[in-house]
Amino acid sequence: MIKTSPGGGCIRVYIPFKARGAKSRLSTILKDDERQLFATLMLEDVIRSLKSSAVDEIILLSTSEEGIGAIESSHGIECLIDDRDLNSAINSILKNETDPVMVVMSDLPLIGSSEIDEMLDFREDLVIAPGIGGGTNILVVRSPEHFRVDYYGNSLQDHINIARKHGLSFRIYYSFLAAVDIDEEADLVELLIHGDGTAAASYLRTLGVSLSVNQGRVTVKREV
Amino acid sequence: MIKTSPGGGCIRVYIPFKARGAKSRLSTILKDDERQLFATLMLEDVIRSLKSSAVDEIILLSTSEEGIGAIESSHGIECLIDDRDLNSAINSILKNETDPVMVVMSDLPLIGSSEIDEMLDFREDLVIAPGIGGGTNILVVRSPEHFRVDYYGNSLQDHINIARKHGLSFRIYYSFLAAVDIDEEADLVELLIHGDGTAAASYLRTLGVSLSVNQGRVTVKREV
Repeated sequence: MIKTSPGGGCIRVYIPFKARGAKSRLSTILKDDERQLFATLMLEDVIRSLKSSAVDEIILLSTSEEGIGAIESSHGIECLIDDRDLNSAINSILKNETDPVMVVMSDLPLIGSSEIDEMLDFREDLVIAPGIGGGTNILVVRSPEHFRVDYYGNSLQDHINIARKHGLSFRIYYSFLAAVDIDEEADLVELLIHGDGTAAASYLRTLGVSLSVNQGRVTVKREV
Repeated sequence: MIKTSPGGGCIRVYIPFKARGAKSRLSTILKDDERQLFATLMLEDVIRSLKSSAVDEIILLSTSEEGIGAIESSHGIECLIDDRDLNSAINSILKNETDPVMVVMSDLPLIGSSEIDEMLDFREDLVIAPGIGGGTNILVVRSPEHFRVDYYGNSLQDHINIARKHGLSFRIYYSFLAAVDIDEEADLVELLIHGDGTAAASYLRTLGVSLSVNQGRVTVKREV
């Protein structure tokens, strides 16, 4: 099934991916090369969920070609290289798109196809899945020519303000699993608790990363 | 409408509330008496959502009578005093209940009646809304005589294990708004972003607590 916009266009999904120096805040528990592989595995989890969803075109938006070839060929998806910052890269896509655009962050290993499909079912001009801490984890933009992104900081509020300024309707899509973006050690707790079946959680387990309970609170530890 | 169990019993909701020394981890930003009032306002937000939901009996389970009288009379709800730890208090309730029991934490100001009603619509023996960090924020127990709680730590996993051990069916109810329990300063970010219309967020604003963006991350600050 191809989801169509009220105007009839099909849904194209962009996944921004930072190929080099990814996930530096995880350096408290993962080494450089481990973080690189971990970031790629989270991306693959996201791609798998998108492929089981109703979207019909997935495009990887990478800052460099490094390490991307294997993903392109194994998942059969397109890749667009843009080494500019996230906002510039996405905004130049929006400027040139007429069909609806979805932007899904690559560090959301817990999302499933049902979250994606639910978001696509809404008819508002803009649908936003917030992250914990005020971020924008997933966006559906039905009129890309009338919207510009402003990621970083309280981007949920910023995106709502931009929608209002342009007279666009919007909806906040509240989802636990779409809210968990994996940036720092504490986020690995969610991945290990809720991420059974994901490549990212399996990899953490092979590294000896596991849950630990200290004074009633759950943290992660790593075997030495 | 009164939600009934497959066996026909009505749903009774217990809200555990720690009257004294509540929310000590918020001492980084709120004074003692402010934390006390803030905790009470979050409780009132929870009670309001429950009253607009399909539940038909709300019981406040408090560790002491202090400060409870006003809530009892203004909301017309019952109060049960039990100064034991949370697990002992809830387990002695479960032991004596035959109708389904719901347990809702008092620090969930973002929940609405729709989250409550969705949880009640499920037919599993146990429905759990996890908190961020492995906790159990809301529980629906359809066969209280066959279940015991074990809060603190990774209680989501513990509750699943207990259900399995007793041959009970269970469902994890993933909800962003039910996952945000307010324990520490970082949690106030979620309340200020998503809590428009709650008494708890309004109170924070009167205290001069607001959002702040530092190096792309959202935090809270307080006017001095």
